[in-house]
Amino acid sequence: MEKLKVGVLGATGAVGQNYINLLRDHPWLDISFLAASKNSDTFQEAVSERGWFMPQDIPEHARNISVWEASDVDKAKSLCDFVFSALESDPAKNLELLYAQEGIPVVSNASAYRWDSFVPMLIPEINADHIAVIPRQKEVKGYEGFIVVKPNCSLQSYMTPLYALMQKDFTIDKVVVTTLQASSGAGWPGVPSLDLIDNIVPYIPKEEDKSEQEPYKILGTVGENGIENYSGLSISATCTRVPVRDGHTASVNISFSNKKPSRQEIIEIWNSFRGLPQEYKLPSAPEQPIIYREEDNRPQPILDRDADKGMAVTVGKLRECPVFDYKFVALSHNTIRGAAGGGILNAELLVKDGYLQNRLK
Amino acid sequence: MEKLKVGVLGATGAVGQNYINLLRDHPWLDISFLAASKNSDTFQEAVSERGWFMPQDIPEHARNISVWEASDVDKAKSLCDFVFSALESDPAKNLELLYAQEGIPVVSNASAYRWDSFVPMLIPEINADHIAVIPRQKEVKGYEGFIVVKPNCSLQSYMTPLYALMQKDFTIDKVVVTTLQASSGAGWPGVPSLDLIDNIVPYIPKEEDKSEQEPYKILGTVGENGIENYSGLSISATCTRVPVRDGHTASVNISFSNKKPSRQEIIEIWNSFRGLPQEYKLPSAPEQPIIYREEDNRPQPILDRDADKGMAVTVGKLRECPVFDYKFVALSHNTIRGAAGGGILNAELLVKDGYLQNRLK
Amino acid sequence: MEKLKVGVLGATGAVGQNYINLLRDHPWLDISFLAASKNSDTFQEAVSERGWFMPQDIPEHARNISVWEASDVDKAKSLCDFVFSALESDPAKNLELLYAQEGIPVVSNASAYRWDSFVPMLIPEINADHIAVIPRQKEVKGYEGFIVVKPNCSLQSYMTPLYALMQKDFTIDKVVVTTLQASSGAGWPGVPSLDLIDNIVPYIPKEEDKSEQEPYKILGTVGENGIENYSGLSISATCTRVPVRDGHTASVNISFSNKKPSRQEIIEIWNSFRGLPQEYKLPSAPEQPIIYREEDNRPQPILDRDADKGMAVTVGKLRECPVFDYKFVALSHNTIRGAAGGGILNAELLVKDGYLQNRLK
Amino acid sequence: MEKLKVGVLGATGAVGQNYINLLRDHPWLDISFLAASKNSDTFQEAVSERGWFMPQDIPEHARNISVWEASDVDKAKSLCDFVFSALESDPAKNLELLYAQEGIPVVSNASAYRWDSFVPMLIPEINADHIAVIPRQKEVKGYEGFIVVKPNCSLQSYMTPLYALMQKDFTIDKVVVTTLQASSGAGWPGVPSLDLIDNIVPYIPKEEDKSEQEPYKILGTVGENGIENYSGLSISATCTRVPVRDGHTASVNISFSNKKPSRQEIIEIWNSFRGLPQEYKLPSAPEQPIIYREEDNRPQPILDRDADKGMAVTVGKLRECPVFDYKFVALSHNTIRGAAGGGILNAELLVKDGYLQNRLK
Repeated sequence: MEKLKVGVLGATGAVGQNYINLLRDHPWLDISFLAASKNSDTFQEAVSERGWFMPQDIPEHARNISVWEASDVDKAKSLCDFVFSALESDPAKNLELLYAQEGIPVVSNASAYRWDSFVPMLIPEINADHIAVIPRQKEVKGYEGFIVVKPNCSLQSYMTPLYALMQKDFTIDKVVVTTLQASSGAGWPGVPSLDLIDNIVPYIPKEEDKSEQEPYKILGTVGENGIENYSGLSISATCTRVPVRDGHTASVNISFSNKKPSRQEIIEIWNSFRGLPQEYKLPSAPEQPIIYREEDNRPQPILDRDADKGMAVTVGKLRECPVFDYKFVALSHNTIRGAAGGGILNAELLVKDGYLQNRLK
Repeated sequence: MEKLKVGVLGATGAVGQNYINLLRDHPWLDISFLAASKNSDTFQEAVSERGWFMPQDIPEHARNISVWEASDVDKAKSLCDFVFSALESDPAKNLELLYAQEGIPVVSNASAYRWDSFVPMLIPEINADHIAVIPRQKEVKGYEGFIVVKPNCSLQSYMTPLYALMQKDFTIDKVVVTTLQASSGAGWPGVPSLDLIDNIVPYIPKEEDKSEQEPYKILGTVGENGIENYSGLSISATCTRVPVRDGHTASVNISFSNKKPSRQEIIEIWNSFRGLPQEYKLPSAPEQPIIYREEDNRPQPILDRDADKGMAVTVGKLRECPVFDYKFVALSHNTIRGAAGGGILNAELLVKDGYLQNRLK
Repeated sequence: MEKLKVGVLGATGAVGQNYINLLRDHPWLDISFLAASKNSDTFQEAVSERGWFMPQDIPEHARNISVWEASDVDKAKSLCDFVFSALESDPAKNLELLYAQEGIPVVSNASAYRWDSFVPMLIPEINADHIAVIPRQKEVKGYEGFIVVKPNCSLQSYMTPLYALMQKDFTIDKVVVTTLQASSGAGWPGVPSLDLIDNIVPYIPKEEDKSEQEPYKILGTVGENGIENYSGLSISATCTRVPVRDGHTASVNISFSNKKPSRQEIIEIWNSFRGLPQEYKLPSAPEQPIIYREEDNRPQPILDRDADKGMAVTVGKLRECPVFDYKFVALSHNTIRGAAGGGILNAELLVKDGYLQNRLK
Repeated sequence: MEKLKVGVLGATGAVGQNYINLLRDHPWLDISFLAASKNSDTFQEAVSERGWFMPQDIPEHARNISVWEASDVDKAKSLCDFVFSALESDPAKNLELLYAQEGIPVVSNASAYRWDSFVPMLIPEINADHIAVIPRQKEVKGYEGFIVVKPNCSLQSYMTPLYALMQKDFTIDKVVVTTLQASSGAGWPGVPSLDLIDNIVPYIPKEEDKSEQEPYKILGTVGENGIENYSGLSISATCTRVPVRDGHTASVNISFSNKKPSRQEIIEIWNSFRGLPQEYKLPSAPEQPIIYREEDNRPQPILDRDADKGMAVTVGKLRECPVFDYKFVALSHNTIRGAAGGGILNAELLVKDGYLQNRLK
């Protein structure tokens, strides 16, 4: 297969740099277009102002790619098959629409279109079937291209473990979660160091709403009017920021409405859970999407965030809950699984199922 | 009033140093006896091995006090009216018993006797009346002295806010709490730095049990067989360690079983709550035991742990909870309110009510 | 004495907040004018956008003071006797000039006029006599008021220890220093947390030049053309940023050109050193400006930055140096002694010597 | 070539775990013997008490290897060709001697024999020729085996850059260095978190002596009485501990005694420097041992410690020094290049030159 040519919108920002870093040697995808708020002769030059934040150097082939204004859709059209959007929510609103209208599929990290019922919000292990809404999206909106999005990074750690139990017919009706989120979730410069030296901050703007609401859509079903939210579950989230570079941790309490699995059953369900990305053997898919650790003191960001290249969720401390049924702690890498890595997995699913293809020539 | 003479058991440890530091200029209490695992000519010398950890220097008068083996009860008897115990749980078991038997009242931080139903576990704003069990304790156990204890530091942030609502007849039946606890809670050397640089640890040995069980006794009532636990409430706790020096934060979700107060009612109840320490104007009592902050991003350890000299609890972010009734975030200073400061407040209550008095001569 | 009325330019920034916090109960000075980039009805409102960062609440009397645009010199003229400037270097250039021209003395933290030879750069324990240049400044520049400045925060830890030795005729000719500087030195938002979690940054823009050059002026003498720099010393500085909230540490190597004092002599010189602020008993003057600690592992930010309310310098680890003569480690509180506290001490000196006085009515 | 069988003494400690982790897929070496303070059936069991600290899981093949008491030399003799010693200095004294006497070569991290003039202290890029002293060591001491050691981790960042210039005949006579060392240098539990949250500690026991003295031996020459120290250089070191997990940084000032290279010459010498490990293409040798970065704000632990798998030194900020000739900042990974990785490179050199060989069978 010839590699697809991809663009990155918002290439110089933190998420954009993660995309470029992770696409370094991708077997299916090749970066051919980079866009930011202004033109630059080379990406190296464009990124020099804020700096390149990754421990690995800029990938050789990306160094000299020209950077275009993100609004230059014609340039994008001539240079790439689809784009990853690492834009902020505000510019994403107009630009992602423009790209979709002009026939360039958009695989987005931004929150701008998460609540459009014709836009699938994907965690491929959970709701790969939601991509079936794409033809309806194109029809209803009159897009030549389309938009798919990924959910907020805060819920990546608990959604797959919850779903794994639900698809085995253990119906979860109540979830209380407190997250301990890493600094990188806010990008760079992001959270001031004075907020996180000897301190935690119990507030991340809009994060609790996203953490509570987005799961309802992710668990929804595709219908005539797009995706219909799941209504069998209520979630309460408290989101805090802690002095950790990468890796969002969640303390989770859950209640079952029908029957209650044993502790051992749950662990087996988690460890054996596989989704479509595993079946398809997508290049970025973790072999085992949920890893349960038996140690008392796991998961920990330092030890577990990089599990399976940062794409697996690590769960631990499953205990009986005196108020609900069970409680556990879950962790996922927020800039990999929760951002660029998750976006790339979405794209791989779309390639595999034929939604993304060689558009040029 | 002549000042009472007090001893500190475990004087060189982290909690012991906090006692010595906080008793610096106490209007009612004077340190006259210090005990550790071995004799030293002066406290300065005794503490030089591990170091004195407080930012303020060793109080002048404590510097040259001799340090005795904690097992030397006769020495204690001749030198002080009562003792604060800052011992580890294991040595506390025998030594606190010995002191009580020998007629030296023990005001303890240790967990050894927290579950003895004749030993009051005090948060003076909540259950000052539990000291009425002391005469029964002396009778049943045959002590000349007695033991009172304080609860674990992890629950100080949420217990007073819960109690304030309950004593206004808003019955809370379910509590789900996740704590983000400071390093100093484990003393020194305590938590290794490699565990808390760029990391959090979702595990503190025995802490979740204490956080769930101790409230039942604190809310209990004094009966024939000592304190009977409150049974109208169930609590689920997840305890984590975060890279913060001082200040335990708790994310709390609560449900009411009878009627549900409005958000404004709750805030008014908290801000206007006063207990016996405030009525008595005890020297260490915070003026306002619960301080509600309206800012979105409070409480924070750095900004709020020192509220009212570290003796007040700061609460914020009271929001409707999609699963229970309300959720909020609470914070208290773990080595002041949650340890030495709390112990001193207990002693002040006992002095005021006549349980501690000039025993010498 | 009637209190002087003071203004703060840049009141909502980090340094400005420190001024307002430290002036809380000042015996000589009362805040009567606050200025920022735009008008607000009250300081409380003006500061609400970025937040008030101090652990103590906004001082009662400052809460409701109106905030004016810093360029409104007429307003300042009618409301205060002199101003503290906590402006950034760029706006300071025009505004401080304007205030001085209009007759309002400026006690500044900014670097804008540090290299004007008619502007004294004060550390009152070292060069209080430099204020004698003020009449010449007014004459040469045609100012009705005047400007005095303080040096950069990075050198506060080592300058007084060096000077204390030099004024005892031990001539230091070479200094090699590496600083480990706190995050608060860059204000808020300042250094991104991703730069300081599990990391240090060996770079602070312009800081090495300031650390090397400013001492030459501080040690200079007042002459016909203003202050003439001292030329008997060369300094080499490397400045790094470390994950510490407050407290700049310096590792210092020094060489003597004439005679070499003994270790004991040096310590005695430091501990007994007193300057004019001590003689004058200025309200913010530390009792002992240089505190030597004998412990192996001092000074440490957490333990020593607050020495004498953050106004003293703490020195330790004085050892023979295999390359130069001696090496030691010094520490001072960068936002107190190194910024607002240092500025207030400068003002106190000027009040005492009659340069600042009741200008209104 | 058949792989050599290696043992690790002190296998459960922090350095030991690093050895086991790094030897995971080594092309020349296979772990066949593990030793600790007591026997265990499997390494997994032996390590479970303190925990396995590496982000990667225990290597499959090491998991089930039995662990023997380190004093069981007979067992070692029957199971491995040589051993890596990751012992603490005290036990190393007796045990390394015993192994050497019994014919088992010891490649050590410990400081016990660093000052024996017949024991080479190796940085293979600098003094690979020192291994020529091994036959004399065996002869003089009567060992059947031998001991080689590596120097302290604190000097790995600056020694190779200094040597690279010296071997080009730019004679350095004075070095003033301040190190900012990572927490992992003290192992686990190591430095208490209360020492490194919002703090730095300007003290590491014995570290300054090692940082100053060991370079003299490393730069020495092999003579009749073993290695004779280099005497043309004097070094002054100040060693501090900072809140960083891995990566020791050094701020270095140097003076040349003969001629002074230009800034550009120095950078070229560093970037083009190669040693014997590079010529031999040893498996763990970094391709480019010294990497110079032109960015203003490098090296940084987070960005540079893993350069070339943690085996390269990264240097930056080369500037003229107002006191000496130049100053720069250097960084190396202390647990890889500075400990286990450095030990493995030493072993590879010894294998290549025939000092380590298949001893069993």
